[in-house]
Amino acid sequence: MMGGSLALAAQDRAQVDSVVGYDADPAALDAALERGVITEKALSAAEAAAYADMVVISTPVRSIPALVEECASAQPAPRLITDMGSTKSAIMGSLSPLAKSLFIGGHPICGAADTGVRYARADLFENATYFLCTTGAAFPKLYEMLQEFILQLGAKPTHIDPVAHDRIMAVVSHLPHVLANVLIDYTGSFKVRGKRALHCTGTSFKDLTRVAGANPAMWGDIFLENRAALSQTVKAIAAELTEFSQLLDQADEPAILDSIASAAAYRGELLELEDITPATLYKVTVRVPDQPGVVSKVMNALGQAEINIEDLTLHHFSRSVGGDLVLFIEGRSVAETAASLVQGLGYAVSVAFTGETRD
Amino acid sequence: MMGGSLALAAQDRAQVDSVVGYDADPAALDAALERGVITEKALSAAEAAAYADMVVISTPVRSIPALVEECASAQPAPRLITDMGSTKSAIMGSLSPLAKSLFIGGHPICGAADTGVRYARADLFENATYFLCTTGAAFPKLYEMLQEFILQLGAKPTHIDPVAHDRIMAVVSHLPHVLANVLIDYTGSFKVRGKRALHCTGTSFKDLTRVAGANPAMWGDIFLENRAALSQTVKAIAAELTEFSQLLDQADEPAILDSIASAAAYRGELLELEDITPATLYKVTVRVPDQPGVVSKVMNALGQAEINIEDLTLHHFSRSVGGDLVLFIEGRSVAETAASLVQGLGYAVSVAFTGETRD
Repeated sequence: MMGGSLALAAQDRAQVDSVVGYDADPAALDAALERGVITEKALSAAEAAAYADMVVISTPVRSIPALVEECASAQPAPRLITDMGSTKSAIMGSLSPLAKSLFIGGHPICGAADTGVRYARADLFENATYFLCTTGAAFPKLYEMLQEFILQLGAKPTHIDPVAHDRIMAVVSHLPHVLANVLIDYTGSFKVRGKRALHCTGTSFKDLTRVAGANPAMWGDIFLENRAALSQTVKAIAAELTEFSQLLDQADEPAILDSIASAAAYRGELLELEDITPATLYKVTVRVPDQPGVVSKVMNALGQAEINIEDLTLHHFSRSVGGDLVLFIEGRSVAETAASLVQGLGYAVSVAFTGETRD
Repeated sequence: MMGGSLALAAQDRAQVDSVVGYDADPAALDAALERGVITEKALSAAEAAAYADMVVISTPVRSIPALVEECASAQPAPRLITDMGSTKSAIMGSLSPLAKSLFIGGHPICGAADTGVRYARADLFENATYFLCTTGAAFPKLYEMLQEFILQLGAKPTHIDPVAHDRIMAVVSHLPHVLANVLIDYTGSFKVRGKRALHCTGTSFKDLTRVAGANPAMWGDIFLENRAALSQTVKAIAAELTEFSQLLDQADEPAILDSIASAAAYRGELLELEDITPATLYKVTVRVPDQPGVVSKVMNALGQAEINIEDLTLHHFSRSVGGDLVLFIEGRSVAETAASLVQGLGYAVSVAFTGETRD
């Protein structure tokens, strides 16, 4: 999916005429050719790399170094080799001098969730941060060439050194997966007097565990590849938690309130970065029955009134009761107009300022 | 909101004729009377409690014990006193023998997110677990009376002892808030060579921090009130994280994969509890522009085809690019029908099996 999307974007947006593909799975390669993701099949990575202006390796992180070496040794050699792996230090540190001279590391940060070439889309990289790492051993010209290509895809090329990349990814991406896994593993086996905690969970628990247990093969690979930075990060969070537990033991109210206020401030900053200002964002909650067409009816009424929805979620309760459709709308008056339109359709609705939750 | 919803539900569903209200804020009390949430105002908690068949206290947890005592001492005394607080041990442990003889603790687990009586709704408790705690000092008849009332509201009364309640809530509700706060506080100040981690976050980070910084006054109160159980839980999670960091240090691949697999199994169990089977749930991702009416157009097409949506989310990217509308639909063929309908509207769409994410 990631590599296929890059191949499609290259053809659609960067005037690339020829994409030679190789995959260990012949069926995947056939599917890529059929969909026009690649223009030609090769029998090996080295064959695909020979003569290439640019080689892009999109495989699980621990298989990348050997593939870089294989491509770097292709005859005639390719001009530039890059990858799409979620970790960078181990890959870049292990390369031979020949491979280093041709290699620029890459990592696009985009919300892709599906695997397989059939989910490839040319617009995947639109507006995404695309990290680029160089060891300094590659020709500066190669870096510029890749940067230009990434810009053509619609992404934002961002230089970062491999160590900084892995330390930041350990915090913002790998740690959340570890926390989700540890939270659900702990809760799953937690029982008090025969009552299982997992059977008493509410919405905050569900938010925190949405990514728990995701793709074990891929995430195991990432955890192991970035184990140095991730271990350091996980230990730091363990220390923060221990410190917070001591604030609780001491009933240190000012420090506890400070930590929540600081979290609220960073959360506000995060929402602002996303172009959503909590100061003007209202939450419209609609209780909807579990029937086809209900969400459509609500959206239709709002669409006809030209009301723009910034974000929405459906909290599913059950077949018999239905769920809550939560809409985020900018501006109090717009949110209130939306609420009265929805009320007019016969559904219970409430409007609230964002930033407060209660379990 | 919580107390007002209970008052509305009592009138709508439990044939209660008279609800006497008291609130420290006179404006809130007036609003409650105006909306018909209460039928009469009182000048104090004791005045509201006198003659009452049932007193319900819905205030921040640390103010509850004094209010229970005040109501228990009202003349003539009420028959039964209950509360709606998110913690139970400290409240129940601190009561006088008189108060204990009249008090049954209560805690409804429902996904209410708004504060203020204007968000009160009679159906809030529908299908919710409603925990009830007794010290054993109250007449058994009072417990039966409250249980019967909770059933009439549409909720599921569930007996639990106060210690078990607080230990379970520490795990499934209070801990997720602590993890979200600690994660965002750590990330907010994390910088490597001038690059801020907060500016590099993706969807998993956003999932994990959705409740970060929520309502500092209310959550500070809950953290402090349940500090014994919460501190123990937070220390246990810190120990689990330290243990995981050691698996990373040892590059213990089988144990790391086991922990992810176990998380996946518990996540599957959680989804099953919610009446959603991951085995048959498909994810349909639609890339939509940021314009009014687009979501409506999609929902309308699916509604007309009688396609039921189990869950949905809009991932907002930016004003210029739009976002991903993610729909969860049961059954592969239904999901594929949905996808082709949406494709017919001119939007890029993909269908995937649930349970896999990639950052």
